[in-house]
Formats: sequence, C-alpha cells, structure tokens
Amino acid sequence: MPRINFHQQLAALKDKLLAMAALSQQALELSVEAYVSRDTSLANHVLEIEQAINAAETTVDEMAYELLAKEQPMAVDLRFILSVIKINGDLERIGDQATGIARRVILLNAQSLIDLPIDMQEMGGKVGVMIRRAIQSLLEADAKLAESVLALDDEVDVMNRAVQTELIELMQRQPESSEQALSAIIISRNLERAADHATNIAEDVIFWVRGSDVRHKLSLVESD
Amino acid sequence: MPRINFHQQLAALKDKLLAMAALSQQALELSVEAYVSRDTSLANHVLEIEQAINAAETTVDEMAYELLAKEQPMAVDLRFILSVIKINGDLERIGDQATGIARRVILLNAQSLIDLPIDMQEMGGKVGVMIRRAIQSLLEADAKLAESVLALDDEVDVMNRAVQTELIELMQRQPESSEQALSAIIISRNLERAADHATNIAEDVIFWVRGSDVRHKLSLVESD
Repeated sequence: MPRINFHQQLAALKDKLLAMAALSQQALELSVEAYVSRDTSLANHVLEIEQAINAAETTVDEMAYELLAKEQPMAVDLRFILSVIKINGDLERIGDQATGIARRVILLNAQSLIDLPIDMQEMGGKVGVMIRRAIQSLLEADAKLAESVLALDDEVDVMNRAVQTELIELMQRQPESSEQALSAIIISRNLERAADHATNIAEDVIFWVRGSDVRHKLSLVESD
Repeated sequence: MPRINFHQQLAALKDKLLAMAALSQQALELSVEAYVSRDTSLANHVLEIEQAINAAETTVDEMAYELLAKEQPMAVDLRFILSVIKINGDLERIGDQATGIARRVILLNAQSLIDLPIDMQEMGGKVGVMIRRAIQSLLEADAKLAESVLALDDEVDVMNRAVQTELIELMQRQPESSEQALSAIIISRNLERAADHATNIAEDVIFWVRGSDVRHKLSLVESD
C-alpha cells in the first residue's frame, strides 16, 4: 500500500470518526423512539446498528494506531489523534447505552402498557443534540460550542432526577406499576450516561483546542 | 529535566497506573462497605479518594503523552502505552461508580433502615477481585488471567439481575420500601458497571498480549 499524505490520513480518520458518531447518535435516538412507541422491530434495528458501531470502533482505533506507528505526528496532531481514540471509546459507550435501552424495550413489550408521567422523548432529544454538538465542536475545533454541551448535561441531570422522584412516588401509590416504572428509571439513567459520554467528548475537545496554539488549530481546520 | 531511559519511563508509567488502580479498587470496596454498614464518614472518604483518582488520571495521561511525543515507541510499546491510556479511563470510571454509590449512601442515611434480601458485600467483593486480576494481568502480560476476569463478569451480571428481580417483587409487596429498594438496584447496577470496566481492561490486555510477539512480551515482563 503506497504511503499516502499524512493530512489525507488525518482527514480520513476524521471522516471515519464522524461516521461512527452518526451511528451512535442514530442508535440513541432510535432507541428512545423504540421505547416511546414500544416498537420491537425498531429496538432490534438498534441492536444491528450496535454491531456496526463496534466494527467502526475497531476501524477508527486501527487507523489511529497506524498513524501513530508509521508517522511521527507533531504535538498538536498527536493530541488530536489521542483525542480521537478517547472519543471513539465514548461513542462506543453511547452505543452501549442505546443497546441497553433497546434490550429493555424488547423485554417491556411482553407486558401490557402503563402510561407513565414522564417525557422520555424530550430527554432523548436533548442527548441527541449534545452528541451532535460535541462532534461538531471537534470537527471545527470550537471550544465554545463544546462548552454548550456541558450546560446541556446539567439540564439532562435535572431531568433524570425528576424522572426518578416522579416514578418513586408512582411506585408507592401504584405498586403494580413498579416494574415498568423501574424500567423507565433505568432508561432515564441510560440517557443520563449517554449525556455523560457526550460531555466527556466535549471536555476532550476543550482540552485539545486549548492545548494547541492558534496556528495549529487553523491549519487543522483548513485540512478538512 | 534530563531525559531518562525509555524503559525506566515505561516502568514509571506502569507504577503510576498501578497506584491509580489501587485507588480505584479501594474506592469501590469502601463504597460497598459504606453501603453495607451505612457509614456516612466512610462514604465521604470515598469522595476524597475520587479526587485523588482524578488527579492520578491526569498524571498517567500526561506521562503517556510525553512518552509518545518525545520517544518513538516501537509497535509493541506503542500498543502498550495506548492500552494504558484506555485502562486509565476505565479506572477513572470505576472511581465514578464508587462515587455514585457513596453519594447514594449519604442520601440513604437520612432515612430509617429497611433490611433488604440481598448480599451487596459478596457482589462488591467479586468486583474487587475482577479489578485486581485485570491489573495483575496487565502487569504480567497474562492473557489467561485476563480471561478469568471475563468469566467473573458473567457471574456479576447474574447477581445484578437477581437483585433486580428480588427487589421488584419486594417493591410490589411493600410499596413503602420502594425508595430504598430502588437505591439498592441502582447500587447493584453501579457494581455491574464497575465490573464492565474491569472487563474492558481485561479485554485490552488480551488484545495487547495477543497482538505482541513472544519476545516483546518477555522483554516487557523483564523490564518490571
């Protein structure tokens, strides 16, 4: 295989990470949709996407290793590649949370439906935005955009705590709802964890951007 | 600072990771002890250890970056250093799970105690063993020992599911126990996630050991 230009390889790595991010975000959003609409086939589709995410994770890791092993990246590019490795892990874990939700949906669908006083769709939507912004902030080396992800994480934490409080009360009033209420609490925690992973990504971006000087930052944006 | 020998730096990195692992394992075991004995001051101590874990995580990352940036590690050492970076992240997340348990213990202690039909100590003990073995398998490049961690993870998964089933039944029979039962379910899940992180570490070790050839493996063990 001919050795291609370093910046082309770096751009290819970014493209692959972006594709991976799209899969993770899609898995998460579809898992919430599957829960809200109690759609088993959609939940099964999330499990398929998870397979693709796992394959993409391996590819991104291998590309990053290759770059580190064969080139001698300068400090700023080295930090970028190491950020990619970490972000890759966080994206895979977002996929895990989506899978957790999907598995629970499949179990739940064996039971009759109880209406719960929570809005999982809104919470899921917020987490989807966080993932999207975290990745955009990486691609544009935009620490300010990354910071907005941290603010959204606080909102998701508040929502998660509210779900828990509401549903504990419900369990006490209507013990027969306990199992489904518990599932909703756990799904809400899955979302909160996915939000934490988006936050990790944003923090890595802030660290990477602030650790690099302006020239390098600009040259990296231009190399897109 | 004089540039010291590469293998000395690698050994220093291992030592620091080992210290970090000891902190994470201690935090997890103490958090379970704090839960079982409802000991608020022990729970607060876990929160202090978490601060030390976060500081150690940063140090390990910086040492690994330094090694990658200033030396040009050969393939096997490169993979080892990248494994260290990943394992470092998993150890920090084990600390997060311990913190989650400790925070919940502090909240729980405001309430009167309900006796629950579960053995959290046994589950916590198993997770502690997993963390210890995962780190030992890294230090000794022992893929077989790492594989035994994966088997323990299956046991922890089974225990976690049993806790959930038991406690949902309890919630339905005794609605007034719902809040404390839910806390126990969530602590059980914290342990299950800590076990997942130990499993991630073991998987990284297996990958690293199998990806390296025997000579390199031997030389690495000797450099300890």
